[in-house]
Amino acid sequence: MTDPPIFIVVVGVAAFAISGVIAGARQDANILTVFVLGVVTAIGGGTLRDIILNIPVFWVRDFTVVWLAILACLVAFLFSSIFREKMWKVLLYADAIGVAFFSVAAIDKTLALGHSGEVAVIMGFVTACTGGIIRDLLTGRPPMMIASEELFVTPVLIGAILYVLLLDIAPQYTTQWSIVAICFMTGFRGIAIETGLQFPKWLRMRPGKRAE
Amino acid sequence: MTDPPIFIVVVGVAAFAISGVIAGARQDANILTVFVLGVVTAIGGGTLRDIILNIPVFWVRDFTVVWLAILACLVAFLFSSIFREKMWKVLLYADAIGVAFFSVAAIDKTLALGHSGEVAVIMGFVTACTGGIIRDLLTGRPPMMIASEELFVTPVLIGAILYVLLLDIAPQYTTQWSIVAICFMTGFRGIAIETGLQFPKWLRMRPGKRAE
Amino acid sequence: MTDPPIFIVVVGVAAFAISGVIAGARQDANILTVFVLGVVTAIGGGTLRDIILNIPVFWVRDFTVVWLAILACLVAFLFSSIFREKMWKVLLYADAIGVAFFSVAAIDKTLALGHSGEVAVIMGFVTACTGGIIRDLLTGRPPMMIASEELFVTPVLIGAILYVLLLDIAPQYTTQWSIVAICFMTGFRGIAIETGLQFPKWLRMRPGKRAE
Repeated sequence: MTDPPIFIVVVGVAAFAISGVIAGARQDANILTVFVLGVVTAIGGGTLRDIILNIPVFWVRDFTVVWLAILACLVAFLFSSIFREKMWKVLLYADAIGVAFFSVAAIDKTLALGHSGEVAVIMGFVTACTGGIIRDLLTGRPPMMIASEELFVTPVLIGAILYVLLLDIAPQYTTQWSIVAICFMTGFRGIAIETGLQFPKWLRMRPGKRAE
Repeated sequence: MTDPPIFIVVVGVAAFAISGVIAGARQDANILTVFVLGVVTAIGGGTLRDIILNIPVFWVRDFTVVWLAILACLVAFLFSSIFREKMWKVLLYADAIGVAFFSVAAIDKTLALGHSGEVAVIMGFVTACTGGIIRDLLTGRPPMMIASEELFVTPVLIGAILYVLLLDIAPQYTTQWSIVAICFMTGFRGIAIETGLQFPKWLRMRPGKRAE
Repeated sequence: MTDPPIFIVVVGVAAFAISGVIAGARQDANILTVFVLGVVTAIGGGTLRDIILNIPVFWVRDFTVVWLAILACLVAFLFSSIFREKMWKVLLYADAIGVAFFSVAAIDKTLALGHSGEVAVIMGFVTACTGGIIRDLLTGRPPMMIASEELFVTPVLIGAILYVLLLDIAPQYTTQWSIVAICFMTGFRGIAIETGLQFPKWLRMRPGKRAE
């Protein structure tokens, strides 16, 4: 139950920054605008996490992570023309990776502060989703978390619960469980993206509504 | 000027959770997605209140209220098929009840911390409206607080001012005044919902705009 | 590196309050609704700034600024019929003035707390843009910060960096540099509004997209 390893933060921040740059691309925005979008997406979730946990906001203490986000934005901007045909899919996967890494990092941090597993699950979920929600609202889209046609909430929520349970059962394997949780969340979400996976009708609101 | 009674918190959380589930229904969302929407709507306002007041966030200290919100979501999900024809109206009333109970609870908490009546009115208003704003933004709707065609801001704002004034005049009747304030806010909002009540034209911006 | 002078706060709050009232006008909202919009726009940015910096929220400590915002709302409401034909342009300029004054005030406050120049730039930017983002989201518009066709992010971001650099080079001229920064930001943004100034295509995402 230590602070999250730097590797997890780096991947999460980079993935979210890239997703922000791509989201801005669809607005035909200029380089500074997409950099702002990328950085806000990358640090938005962690900012809310630290505010809710009432600890100093991470980038106010250590600015390195913002430089990292800016660097990821630059790379995404320079290479954006390469994957232009598949922008939307790259955005979906960058978001999925950011969500997985950030939820694990937030759960680690919350447990390290001595909070309960339940609070850690919520903090993991909130931290993972907030950056993307801000990104979508700023670019005038309904947030992917809710609007996504395929499963979005389920992989991260189940993954967060799984991770907390594994840490509770065998706390000595922190690193292993974090890898398991990240693979579970990105794999599950990846399957949902590729196959359009959804719940059966009776577990969705208003079944048959469109048939009425 | 004590902490808000548990009854007020329970009703407010349950009402907002139900409104969140219904809001998700319109997106044809699955059970986990609407649970997330319900819980976020239920705890969003109080989270912002505690952050602004710089006190520990209530559900980080005591997770019970989140379980309560989840329970309310489950009930709303199971019974949603019953009131399917009147979903929108149930949403409006659930929101109205949540707004009324949360503004009273937030005013109590703000005054108990020793802040002025003016700050308490703002905190009551902000706490009451934030959950619904998050719910509407997450489901891709313009926030009801502003977009509502009938009066929305007026009942809660006047009710909050009334409650603070009554507590100032006769502080020994806390419970009575909280009942008066809740009845005033829900009743006033209910009349607005049923009759489409609005201000006269000269108290609205751009009178005659549509006639031009 | 002192607290921001009261003049800067007054102008920033008044400008944002006016922009909020005008934004509400387009929804045909009533007087209380536009007052709420004006006040939220005026105090939203500073609220987030104080929350991130982990200091007491300014209007909880000193309510004067809210009265000022309400007064500005009243003036904007009473005089709105005069500039009705040019509402959108008045909104753009009120927003530009609010952004400029708030970013300077936030940079002053952040540096006074002993944070680095990098953190001050981010805080200046976040504080300046948040009020307008909340205003736009509440009135159901895509946030101007991103959706604006002409330069929006660039003037405030460059201006904030310029201001921090000038304060670093010659810290004895605080007042002069704040005037320089405000003139730079409003002037630059004004030119963008009047001329539709944008970056060249190669510094925008997806160059040539529309031609494909």
